[in-house]
Amino acid sequence: MRLADIGEFGLIARLAGIIGGRAGDASGVVLGVGDDAAAFQPRPDRLSVATADMLVEEVHFRRDWMSARDLGWKALAVNLSDCAAMAAEPRFALVCIALDERTDPSYVLDLYAGMQELAARFGVRIAGGDTVSSPSGLVLSVTALGEVEPERMATRSGARPGDRILVTGTLGDSAAGCAALLAGPEAARVPPAVLEAHRRPWPRVAEARAAALAGGVSAMIDISDGLAGDLRHICEESGVGAEVAAAAIPISPACRDAARVLGRDPLDLALTGGEDYELLLTVAPQRAEDVRAATAAAGATATDIGEILPGGAWLRLPDGTRAPLPVSGYRHFQT
Amino acid sequence: MRLADIGEFGLIARLAGIIGGRAGDASGVVLGVGDDAAAFQPRPDRLSVATADMLVEEVHFRRDWMSARDLGWKALAVNLSDCAAMAAEPRFALVCIALDERTDPSYVLDLYAGMQELAARFGVRIAGGDTVSSPSGLVLSVTALGEVEPERMATRSGARPGDRILVTGTLGDSAAGCAALLAGPEAARVPPAVLEAHRRPWPRVAEARAAALAGGVSAMIDISDGLAGDLRHICEESGVGAEVAAAAIPISPACRDAARVLGRDPLDLALTGGEDYELLLTVAPQRAEDVRAATAAAGATATDIGEILPGGAWLRLPDGTRAPLPVSGYRHFQT
Repeated sequence: MRLADIGEFGLIARLAGIIGGRAGDASGVVLGVGDDAAAFQPRPDRLSVATADMLVEEVHFRRDWMSARDLGWKALAVNLSDCAAMAAEPRFALVCIALDERTDPSYVLDLYAGMQELAARFGVRIAGGDTVSSPSGLVLSVTALGEVEPERMATRSGARPGDRILVTGTLGDSAAGCAALLAGPEAARVPPAVLEAHRRPWPRVAEARAAALAGGVSAMIDISDGLAGDLRHICEESGVGAEVAAAAIPISPACRDAARVLGRDPLDLALTGGEDYELLLTVAPQRAEDVRAATAAAGATATDIGEILPGGAWLRLPDGTRAPLPVSGYRHFQT
Repeated sequence: MRLADIGEFGLIARLAGIIGGRAGDASGVVLGVGDDAAAFQPRPDRLSVATADMLVEEVHFRRDWMSARDLGWKALAVNLSDCAAMAAEPRFALVCIALDERTDPSYVLDLYAGMQELAARFGVRIAGGDTVSSPSGLVLSVTALGEVEPERMATRSGARPGDRILVTGTLGDSAAGCAALLAGPEAARVPPAVLEAHRRPWPRVAEARAAALAGGVSAMIDISDGLAGDLRHICEESGVGAEVAAAAIPISPACRDAARVLGRDPLDLALTGGEDYELLLTVAPQRAEDVRAATAAAGATATDIGEILPGGAWLRLPDGTRAPLPVSGYRHFQT
């Protein structure tokens, strides 16, 4: 079976078999795939949030680095993670995909199956999108729509001096996995957990909702550019500074093992690697313990790694001295 | 100035200068560009609609065929047209763009300026998106979000035998413009209006809202695949047939002139060309005159071109005979 044999509408019909067709359902979707637009019922008294990410072959992923199912999972996961960073519940998604004609339709179906696998875990309905041809590589653009109570919405701009800085899970695993894939044969020698972290990030939706419900969260972001880069985003948008204790940054044994195999510094992977899709939160100090308890109960440990300052961006080293927080994170258009 | 000099965040800052930054405004946006997601306030008692389209260089457009401003305009227009086809008011948009490093930043700024020009005309706020690098061509993916009163929403699935078939504006102009551009030097010899129709389609939002308010609209779609193809979509989703009178199909003098220059049949351009972004409506017969009057008052003449039947898809020719409605419209993955 080739794409040219089944055509655009044949492909769409098969995709609808995976993600669901026109019919509405309990998710709030009134009209799904198959009309000019999807339609859904917003919940009363909530704000809508909308986020979109584009994944480009050879820039964001390589087909030989992850299965089609993993790619589908990840493309949706990064968007659900953005919803989580607002403390919003993701509800709906639209998926645009550009494919070259040589792509095997079964690859595309697997990709949507991986997306649907994650969508089902979060009660998210993939309700529409676009399917077009591309002269060469694969491009995926996913939009996620979610909802949040106005009083619970978390942004990047509310951090205040004295706030504690918390981070969920562990950092650097995904970057270690990516570095192993880049290194080629090294991938076989690193713990599978770091490859899994790179291929199948788990959006911290429940943890973000629990943290926001606990109260006192002043700013939140998901870590896509690396801890240093994303903390700088919070500092810039909030007009504050920060100090992070290097020794407090949560790094998994798997990441340390992988770093050793790869000859990399695990702290560097955690600070500048990116694609962790963990939450970085700032919390009023008197609420920090409650937020940590709520986050842990929802699924992930939150670790206190430092404090918001009036200015500057610092890394406290184990010897007690402090160094400037690295300027880090992947930048498009800069090599 | 090169993209590599200003980088991803430098580009985003400049784009925010065109489309607006974080701050909320009267559009209902609570949080714009610059956080993990945009946030906005849905209107009570409305359904939300969401649509996304992807435009790929060398598939959907060529940079030498239209200015960056035109491309920006068109990328948003096709999405606003999808909102219109639901009888929804477009309110917000997210824009994802993949660019190769060699793209001049001024090209990108012009593209967003064209998008913003149209957005301003429709009170639409561009509230977020993603800006990434691409190994080669430009890819644009725009999501539009709108709102509609549940009782006024128009879909493809409500047409009933006996309904009149109406179409706004004229058909074939955009296809004539596209054919002229494909023909190269011929472009200079066709009326500029057909090139303009191809480059700057006008989404029929006001007309669609007026038609829905008038009552009796049973199905609606915007014509992107060509009249024949999109009427077939309505027939398939509604489980009905249709007959269109060839002589009734509205074709502009500019389209006829261009067709003559190009050696094309203007009726063929109108039936199978596509990218008209006019509305195709089916209306209960006793409401057809009111809908036509309402649509005309809102901006565009609506022409009665035929009738919904229990089955079949026919074109009534000027000599009184009927022929099968052509199977038409651009299909991705089929050459």
